[in-house]
Amino acid sequence: MDSRRAEAFSDGVFAIAITLLVLNLRLPAPTRGCSTVGCELLAAWPSYFAYVVSFLTIGIMWMNHHTILGHVTRVDRPLLVLNLLLLMGVVAIPFPTEVVAAHLVRDGGGTAAFAYGLVMIVISAGFGGIWVYVVTHGDRLGAPLPPDALRRSIPGFTLGGVVYAAGAVIAVVGFPVIALVIYGLLAVYYLFEHLPNPEPRPGAGPG
Amino acid sequence: MDSRRAEAFSDGVFAIAITLLVLNLRLPAPTRGCSTVGCELLAAWPSYFAYVVSFLTIGIMWMNHHTILGHVTRVDRPLLVLNLLLLMGVVAIPFPTEVVAAHLVRDGGGTAAFAYGLVMIVISAGFGGIWVYVVTHGDRLGAPLPPDALRRSIPGFTLGGVVYAAGAVIAVVGFPVIALVIYGLLAVYYLFEHLPNPEPRPGAGPG
Amino acid sequence: MDSRRAEAFSDGVFAIAITLLVLNLRLPAPTRGCSTVGCELLAAWPSYFAYVVSFLTIGIMWMNHHTILGHVTRVDRPLLVLNLLLLMGVVAIPFPTEVVAAHLVRDGGGTAAFAYGLVMIVISAGFGGIWVYVVTHGDRLGAPLPPDALRRSIPGFTLGGVVYAAGAVIAVVGFPVIALVIYGLLAVYYLFEHLPNPEPRPGAGPG
Amino acid sequence: MDSRRAEAFSDGVFAIAITLLVLNLRLPAPTRGCSTVGCELLAAWPSYFAYVVSFLTIGIMWMNHHTILGHVTRVDRPLLVLNLLLLMGVVAIPFPTEVVAAHLVRDGGGTAAFAYGLVMIVISAGFGGIWVYVVTHGDRLGAPLPPDALRRSIPGFTLGGVVYAAGAVIAVVGFPVIALVIYGLLAVYYLFEHLPNPEPRPGAGPG
Repeated sequence: MDSRRAEAFSDGVFAIAITLLVLNLRLPAPTRGCSTVGCELLAAWPSYFAYVVSFLTIGIMWMNHHTILGHVTRVDRPLLVLNLLLLMGVVAIPFPTEVVAAHLVRDGGGTAAFAYGLVMIVISAGFGGIWVYVVTHGDRLGAPLPPDALRRSIPGFTLGGVVYAAGAVIAVVGFPVIALVIYGLLAVYYLFEHLPNPEPRPGAGPG
Repeated sequence: MDSRRAEAFSDGVFAIAITLLVLNLRLPAPTRGCSTVGCELLAAWPSYFAYVVSFLTIGIMWMNHHTILGHVTRVDRPLLVLNLLLLMGVVAIPFPTEVVAAHLVRDGGGTAAFAYGLVMIVISAGFGGIWVYVVTHGDRLGAPLPPDALRRSIPGFTLGGVVYAAGAVIAVVGFPVIALVIYGLLAVYYLFEHLPNPEPRPGAGPG
Repeated sequence: MDSRRAEAFSDGVFAIAITLLVLNLRLPAPTRGCSTVGCELLAAWPSYFAYVVSFLTIGIMWMNHHTILGHVTRVDRPLLVLNLLLLMGVVAIPFPTEVVAAHLVRDGGGTAAFAYGLVMIVISAGFGGIWVYVVTHGDRLGAPLPPDALRRSIPGFTLGGVVYAAGAVIAVVGFPVIALVIYGLLAVYYLFEHLPNPEPRPGAGPG
Repeated sequence: MDSRRAEAFSDGVFAIAITLLVLNLRLPAPTRGCSTVGCELLAAWPSYFAYVVSFLTIGIMWMNHHTILGHVTRVDRPLLVLNLLLLMGVVAIPFPTEVVAAHLVRDGGGTAAFAYGLVMIVISAGFGGIWVYVVTHGDRLGAPLPPDALRRSIPGFTLGGVVYAAGAVIAVVGFPVIALVIYGLLAVYYLFEHLPNPEPRPGAGPG
């Protein structure tokens, strides 16, 4: 299968998952002690916070997904299956986002932010798996990666896993807000430190 | 109509349907006997289970849909209508998924998993119908399929229908969890055993 | 603006609107007199019925939208605005679908099916408006339509308006189920009787 | 990265955000004093009103987003990040739309319409930021804009900010309906008064 088709499908899934995050933006239930809309809008700040962190996270994941698949000119069944498993994690992100938004400043906030970190670790592992497959099957996928591409990418992946794990630990010992800040900062960090860019493909238009 | 346009529309529908599955991931109602978020997250396991099965199922259906339409270079009205009917089934999948997730471990789990299997049988029949139409109208659709393509694909389609029917029976006699496992295994099976791949189209890019 | 970009955006909107219809598939509230899941699944038939009618309707609208824009090679601001107004109607379809599904067999079913018909009449008028604009501005839009294209399309548009209006009247006098059947039959009818097909565009790929 | 890929992702996000607006179309809760479906359908007018205003707003934003990115032939990381931040605002629009629809004619309507205006001001600033970046980095992005493009676009951006701010003030002093009318008129105004159109790209097809 042409890799562009798999990319287009993945792009669609990323675009929909990131947009569904808006469904988690909602006013708290009336019983939460607000009597005005203004109070409710302010009291909903955990859902705005979780929205921003998850939006940045999915957005950066989309960019990195492109960077990885941009090295590839054709996809085989194993890569499609790995990609499907990765998307299964990405599509689920609105769920822990909602749980965190609903519980961040109440009982269970630590557990919620811990679960959020767990999902991120699973997705990071999925990215790692795809990257390893692409680098080690470069011939078959038409991906002309240098032999040391894998070795040089280890620090970046390790860092992500370690920081998400640290965030999850911080969450579970009782600081869910700090954990969420860490998750957000990690997304921002990956904006600047990332996998090697692919060469532009022939025929991919100007630019 | 150019077949690529129908494919793009279908791709969009598959991508949205698979992403909407996340809306079924939600914590159980507070009345279900949990007092902590952790307990609620664990108690929601049937919705995770149903999510994974349906995600794999729609994902594999997307791949097979591509395999079928990949043989075709133009579509006519009957094929568009058959495709629309097929998509009508695929788009509905989040509904039985939700019913199964909500009832898997309660009264009515058998009926729910039976209904899920029924929807899958209908969709399988839809795939069979499109495949028969493509193979028998190869000239008109620009699909250069060998004369025995239809005969050779019969075992695969038959197996799917039989296994889904077996799952539905197992569900209705009282083992909905086993039925759901069977549905999931069938999706995994179709990853490896599938319709013949089309030749790459001229001008479809590298790969 | 290149017409293909407007088409791609419209395709996306059609694909999402048709997929969001699944959110209207849901079991009736427990208070409605069912004690088993099987009973609830059967009692939800009005939502399946409304789903099928609206799915066919949006699907056929998508095909006709393509037929119209297929005549055009570039779009101008007025056409973009007309298209936006048309999409505003199409995107709204899940709402009357939900109202009809919730009330079809209860008090207010007639009003609900009347409102459904009203939305369809407005959308039909939108299609008529775009078609008139395309035919009368063929030079500007690069649409080489014959001079009598407009006159020859009048019967088809008139029929749609008249049948939807008849359905709405039948609904309001107390037969909402019959009205919904009529709406569905009209969608099926438009599968076979439709606007003239555009010539294939140069460079649009094989077929 | 090729600018067309970023455009396709953005198009998808715009298409989904505009379509999710339909989820805010819903009948008022039964307790609001209606005893018939017809009464409920009429009483839901604030949600129709908010739907129309937000639909036009997102639709026009989509057009202007195209106008801006149409000048660019390749995108760099800063532009991707600015674009992601802009989309974060656009995707959120269904939330203030829902708040306005729920409160327009009740207590808190002023606050709700004020919040709506605030979100619009933030998004307008996002558009301004992207436009400034594109104009000042034309060489790097392959955007051959004339030197006075920035200066000449200042009035249009200023007007948007001022009118949204005026609407927000009018809302907060107690006239939310008038504020929403102003937001809607501003969307219509931008249909006719807008940024300079890009030259058609080579190879972008006929038109």
